[in-house]
Amino acid sequence: MMNIDVLSIFPEMFEGVFGHSILKKAAEKGAAEYNVVNFRDFADNKHQTVDDYPYGGGAGMVLKPQPIFDAVSDLKERAKSTSPRVILMCPQGERYTQKKAEELAREEHLIFICGHYEGYDERIREHVITDEISIGDYVLTGGELGAMVVIDSVVRLLPGVLGSEESHIQDSFSTGLLEHPHYTRPAEFRGLKVPDVLVSGNHKLIDEWRMKESLRRTLQRRPDLLEEAELTEQQKKWLEELIKLNE
Amino acid sequence: MMNIDVLSIFPEMFEGVFGHSILKKAAEKGAAEYNVVNFRDFADNKHQTVDDYPYGGGAGMVLKPQPIFDAVSDLKERAKSTSPRVILMCPQGERYTQKKAEELAREEHLIFICGHYEGYDERIREHVITDEISIGDYVLTGGELGAMVVIDSVVRLLPGVLGSEESHIQDSFSTGLLEHPHYTRPAEFRGLKVPDVLVSGNHKLIDEWRMKESLRRTLQRRPDLLEEAELTEQQKKWLEELIKLNE
Repeated sequence: MMNIDVLSIFPEMFEGVFGHSILKKAAEKGAAEYNVVNFRDFADNKHQTVDDYPYGGGAGMVLKPQPIFDAVSDLKERAKSTSPRVILMCPQGERYTQKKAEELAREEHLIFICGHYEGYDERIREHVITDEISIGDYVLTGGELGAMVVIDSVVRLLPGVLGSEESHIQDSFSTGLLEHPHYTRPAEFRGLKVPDVLVSGNHKLIDEWRMKESLRRTLQRRPDLLEEAELTEQQKKWLEELIKLNE
Repeated sequence: MMNIDVLSIFPEMFEGVFGHSILKKAAEKGAAEYNVVNFRDFADNKHQTVDDYPYGGGAGMVLKPQPIFDAVSDLKERAKSTSPRVILMCPQGERYTQKKAEELAREEHLIFICGHYEGYDERIREHVITDEISIGDYVLTGGELGAMVVIDSVVRLLPGVLGSEESHIQDSFSTGLLEHPHYTRPAEFRGLKVPDVLVSGNHKLIDEWRMKESLRRTLQRRPDLLEEAELTEQQKKWLEELIKLNE
């Protein structure tokens, strides 16, 4: 079972996400356990302050080292885990990818540290943290949503968590191409029809159409993915035709 | 006031996030209003089914057009807004950036559509959606967390939402460089000291140290950002020195 701890001064933010959908199911199946700790409880000053002004001046607040150091120590002791990954959610971190999700899914114990508005005292980075992760190049109010994103992407990879229906969705970032369009009933909805080929029953043509559409969409929207994708000779030929059509 | 609607079959997932921190504050201040709609309520079949098998075969389910078409129509009518942005959260979407957050922050009405496990019937894409957004190259169980990420990043930009303390955090993706390290009290914590320069009181040296550290961190972690950043002559010189040191 994966042991997931989160340090945040807004523990209530996690209730809706941990309590529903796949994360709830994973907990019920015994695949993962979540524990959200308000690190304000570890502050050793009488006002339970967790941040303070930055040395050297400037605006903004900085998370103090003491509450985080002590909260992480406490979690390590309780878990008796030899080497948890201690993950800081921050814009300066390594950009999160599916590969990183697969790597984290092999761990037994993850600890997430979520700041809120503030910067982090550098001593936290240097002495407590094993990984710094950014989920993308945009600014969020805190690390909480980033931690939820990472946890969702990791937990769905744990053995037994996804049912067969759910796991069969083709993962865009596993095949290296974007997905082809999907259609379901009705065949005509308010005058809008599904492509004839999909109702033809000819599976060779359907597969061909899907692969071409997948290549077309990737070319239009994310040509950078094509550089990394391992294409068959047939796929390369179709891709060349699509590129010619676009010229 | 920004009007934010979310379509999801897991509306409870949003409670913790909308009910705390900056999103709650924004609602209290009248800067934004959130409304989560379970689009299952719009399904016109007796079992309230929202998905069905894909035409052309294959595993996985596909969201039916009818419930989404009707739920979006209903929201548009109630809001009487002339042209809401209707945003589909999906891995095939445009990669989300701070620039897109700034663009969306100028809108009056955003509608987010969150699928869960399933694909989307292509007719939804073609006839209902104005924007497709992906928050990153990783696979999530559904669009809900992506919508929360986009909403948080947009709402914090709305006028009057952030207090002065919160808004002064330097936004990494606005300056084009990663932030320099931060330190706060105590000056020595369990034997770990803050750099002398930060307690020197010499603001010229402090600014120089911060800029160099910002360049160093960007060079080490995200050299791609340096290609886009607009650097002063002094910054370019320091960057060259750092590159020489690394060789």
